[in-house]
Amino acid sequence: MQRLAIGPLYYEFSRHYSPRLRIRPGETIVVATEDALSGQIRTNDDRRDKVAMPYSNPLTGPIAVEGAEPGDSLAVTIHEIRPTGGQAATRTAEPKQLCEWLGTDCPHGAHVCPIRDGLIYWSDTVTIPYAPMIGCIGTAPDWGCPTTLPAGPHGGNLDILETAPGNTVYLPVFVTDGLLYLGDLHAAMGHGELSATGLEMAGETTLTVDLLKQSRLAWPRIESPEEIMAVVSGPPMERSIAQAYAQLILWMESSYGWDRWRAYDLLTHVGRISVGYYGLGTVAAKVEKRYLAGK
Amino acid sequence: MQRLAIGPLYYEFSRHYSPRLRIRPGETIVVATEDALSGQIRTNDDRRDKVAMPYSNPLTGPIAVEGAEPGDSLAVTIHEIRPTGGQAATRTAEPKQLCEWLGTDCPHGAHVCPIRDGLIYWSDTVTIPYAPMIGCIGTAPDWGCPTTLPAGPHGGNLDILETAPGNTVYLPVFVTDGLLYLGDLHAAMGHGELSATGLEMAGETTLTVDLLKQSRLAWPRIESPEEIMAVVSGPPMERSIAQAYAQLILWMESSYGWDRWRAYDLLTHVGRISVGYYGLGTVAAKVEKRYLAGK
Amino acid sequence: MQRLAIGPLYYEFSRHYSPRLRIRPGETIVVATEDALSGQIRTNDDRRDKVAMPYSNPLTGPIAVEGAEPGDSLAVTIHEIRPTGGQAATRTAEPKQLCEWLGTDCPHGAHVCPIRDGLIYWSDTVTIPYAPMIGCIGTAPDWGCPTTLPAGPHGGNLDILETAPGNTVYLPVFVTDGLLYLGDLHAAMGHGELSATGLEMAGETTLTVDLLKQSRLAWPRIESPEEIMAVVSGPPMERSIAQAYAQLILWMESSYGWDRWRAYDLLTHVGRISVGYYGLGTVAAKVEKRYLAGK
Amino acid sequence: MQRLAIGPLYYEFSRHYSPRLRIRPGETIVVATEDALSGQIRTNDDRRDKVAMPYSNPLTGPIAVEGAEPGDSLAVTIHEIRPTGGQAATRTAEPKQLCEWLGTDCPHGAHVCPIRDGLIYWSDTVTIPYAPMIGCIGTAPDWGCPTTLPAGPHGGNLDILETAPGNTVYLPVFVTDGLLYLGDLHAAMGHGELSATGLEMAGETTLTVDLLKQSRLAWPRIESPEEIMAVVSGPPMERSIAQAYAQLILWMESSYGWDRWRAYDLLTHVGRISVGYYGLGTVAAKVEKRYLAGK
Repeated sequence: MQRLAIGPLYYEFSRHYSPRLRIRPGETIVVATEDALSGQIRTNDDRRDKVAMPYSNPLTGPIAVEGAEPGDSLAVTIHEIRPTGGQAATRTAEPKQLCEWLGTDCPHGAHVCPIRDGLIYWSDTVTIPYAPMIGCIGTAPDWGCPTTLPAGPHGGNLDILETAPGNTVYLPVFVTDGLLYLGDLHAAMGHGELSATGLEMAGETTLTVDLLKQSRLAWPRIESPEEIMAVVSGPPMERSIAQAYAQLILWMESSYGWDRWRAYDLLTHVGRISVGYYGLGTVAAKVEKRYLAGK
Repeated sequence: MQRLAIGPLYYEFSRHYSPRLRIRPGETIVVATEDALSGQIRTNDDRRDKVAMPYSNPLTGPIAVEGAEPGDSLAVTIHEIRPTGGQAATRTAEPKQLCEWLGTDCPHGAHVCPIRDGLIYWSDTVTIPYAPMIGCIGTAPDWGCPTTLPAGPHGGNLDILETAPGNTVYLPVFVTDGLLYLGDLHAAMGHGELSATGLEMAGETTLTVDLLKQSRLAWPRIESPEEIMAVVSGPPMERSIAQAYAQLILWMESSYGWDRWRAYDLLTHVGRISVGYYGLGTVAAKVEKRYLAGK
Repeated sequence: MQRLAIGPLYYEFSRHYSPRLRIRPGETIVVATEDALSGQIRTNDDRRDKVAMPYSNPLTGPIAVEGAEPGDSLAVTIHEIRPTGGQAATRTAEPKQLCEWLGTDCPHGAHVCPIRDGLIYWSDTVTIPYAPMIGCIGTAPDWGCPTTLPAGPHGGNLDILETAPGNTVYLPVFVTDGLLYLGDLHAAMGHGELSATGLEMAGETTLTVDLLKQSRLAWPRIESPEEIMAVVSGPPMERSIAQAYAQLILWMESSYGWDRWRAYDLLTHVGRISVGYYGLGTVAAKVEKRYLAGK
Repeated sequence: MQRLAIGPLYYEFSRHYSPRLRIRPGETIVVATEDALSGQIRTNDDRRDKVAMPYSNPLTGPIAVEGAEPGDSLAVTIHEIRPTGGQAATRTAEPKQLCEWLGTDCPHGAHVCPIRDGLIYWSDTVTIPYAPMIGCIGTAPDWGCPTTLPAGPHGGNLDILETAPGNTVYLPVFVTDGLLYLGDLHAAMGHGELSATGLEMAGETTLTVDLLKQSRLAWPRIESPEEIMAVVSGPPMERSIAQAYAQLILWMESSYGWDRWRAYDLLTHVGRISVGYYGLGTVAAKVEKRYLAGK
């Protein structure tokens, strides 16, 4: 099994970087990634130094997928996410967008949490179940080089809880070889990622990358054993919710034979929304697969 | 046990209507309500006639709570919601806000679904678990008379899944007697209520109304056996999410002794968002009670 | 000429209040109004006391227009706005929505500015041209009683610069008699009304009210000698801009014979937007009348 | 005077392209640019072919400014914008974001308008004053390569009416040499650019580029003989308005000695907003210079 170590830290989903690994469709690999804070916080005494590193969410990649061409899509199945440092780091910082309600006297601080036996030790009295996910995953667009801050049709800083082991993420291919990047692992994440800094960790992700020829996607999709999900990002969030449901309906139409307006009716009653980072307006609209057979 | 039958259909949370029932704090009552479509759709051949009734979401009420004064709050515990007609009605209509993605050729149609044995028979092949909730619940403001379309600090058209049996809804009191109204029951509801018309049903709700003196609330709150939740409504939804988390943090601070910024950190990792009607930007920010002891 | 003095201060566009004046269509009247701060600030030492008066923007009215019925509209031509106290009052207060960029150390303070000879004396060194407008003008809806905070199809807290002498405001009639209210005069106003408190003044407005039978309006309109304007309110503002242009296009189609898509093309190149209170997302989309003949 | 001809059409503000022209600070140059439609529409029979060219708004550049380093800013004074083809082209296309109000039966069509003697001949009966502006102007960021669709701190697709002859645009420098790009000239533009396709023209722009050392800008600024303006982009527009006013206040504080809260008060009464492309939420907050002396 090929392993891709942390190399130069890239902060863009860029077509301008040379592939660091070349894989065949269907290959399973292990990818090591640095944490979102570029490893600056290892103890509670460390501080995020934005002069030394102004960017967030370093990526490992790009990974070239043989035969990938514009108009194809990648199916990335996540098997396992393992914390390599045995801990996650977070930090509280001035919640500027919330100061209207909470004020601005937030004590800035690093907060390192050990991870052991499936638990994150947030404090002496609070443990959080280890529920890892990938914050940033995406392909290189043909037009523009997005930073690791936004999310978009290429994926990017999706920060969706469901980008997690057991699930498959579908991403569009825009350039030859696809050029897949990932990073920004979280040991756990709340809906909305309120402070914009999750339980950030360096880790190793085991994943399989399949290639779906001529399967153009407007936005990323996620599939779990129980659900299919359409992901859309961008403010205002209510617009992204409408668009994500529309993408889910079009998926039900094209892949499961549903009438568009029957799907629209059904999702009104059984659809579910998972909220990603609230500042970006990212959401996944979901439906349980058990409904899909009943078109 | 007092029962309040459907009376005149009111479409406003208004202080100008006379109480139809007067109860003592702690009293358990049964309230009958018409469906959101004012009962216009009973079969698949019926149509929503907006000339005959241009308003939606008729309410039963107001209910006067003895001793309720401005600055108090009501704690409304929902025990049971029973469909009186044995069915729910929904309809597809031009999805104007979605026409950008789905087009405008939606076949208009009523869709009546029988409810039996805990199941909603949406079609011959699809059944949806009966998971009833109250769409509209609120008190009469002292300033303005909101229609049954928006949600606000008074409650209103909350359309939140968690306004459901087993849970308690906390609502502010603005005028003497509180003046509680409810209506718009749904047999089940998806996050976002995509088409704006749920599985609407007439029904009877059993609830207990308690009075909390001098407990001013900025926005409604909901408590389930496992979670506490702060509800905020208004576009853009990302702003409501931030404000709902802020309200939840202030609740953790005032009632559970949490430091504000510790709560802010914790919710980043374990908070959950439940999305109400997307067109209004209504959300509930939630946290499991088991975390609250660990301040 | 009938004069309507300041009477009870109403803070709602409500159908529940009895008309204080009854006029014939075409009649010219003078209406006196209190300032938006309910007269609490007369000197720089005064403070806005929200305990004594929690509401803002008191109205004078309602004015009944003989023969007005639902589906009609009122054409309110503003002739003159005169400050009765010879001054305007404003105040700086915590700019909560801006604290992300400006901080929260705003010195709270009243600021009274004399008005003389067409000038507002804002300071020893700064004078602002006297450019009065009506902040709140609207009719009573049949459904709900809006407070004096929002704007809507009924008008309300429009805070649009163009609600000014020389111009005509068109408002829909929802109930018998129309029930017109006005208040919240500003001696001048910037686009957006940044602090939400303009140069508030008590004053007398001279206006003529005409009745247009069977002329249903979706939203208020304004006409100046040079321009026609469609007003829409509500966040996000970009949606209101699109909707206001759509309303303007439909007006060009129905009243000036334009093809809808030609109007859409033209407005892309010559349309203008006037921004009202930014917190409400209120805008007017405008076009110069000289273009209208060229359909 | 150096002239930069149209070269390879770039559609990104990218640091990866080599400078096509190198100038000294203070130098005046002429820059030729293709139209936003990549020259695909020259007659009313032409169509925008998105297969042949999926991107919009081609740029000429980059222009290297000697001595420009990160933390500096460029002051670009626009002297003249001349249409090289004697015409502007626009097109109507499905107004997806407006279909809720206008429907979807828009006849797609190119529309070419001759420009002569300071007039744009939009039709036989309608002429529009020639009021040219630059739609896209910006520098290459150090992080990410924005396409020519969005606007941001680097400038980009600003689509602000005030990027016009007689005015100076201030842009931040992020990389050595600055790397200035421009394109997307409009012969005239309405507020909001409703259809997203203005009166697009190829042209030649005469401009002077000055270098301001160590003058870090958070967002672009514009200065006219009468006004100073702060530009911010991003939805929701109401947030951009608040942020643009905040940027304007901070400018008044740092460059004109104003107290922040006095400026906040003044702008409430005399500030003006110019709306750029509504789909991006771009605005300029403006104040007349004559007020600035009166701090």
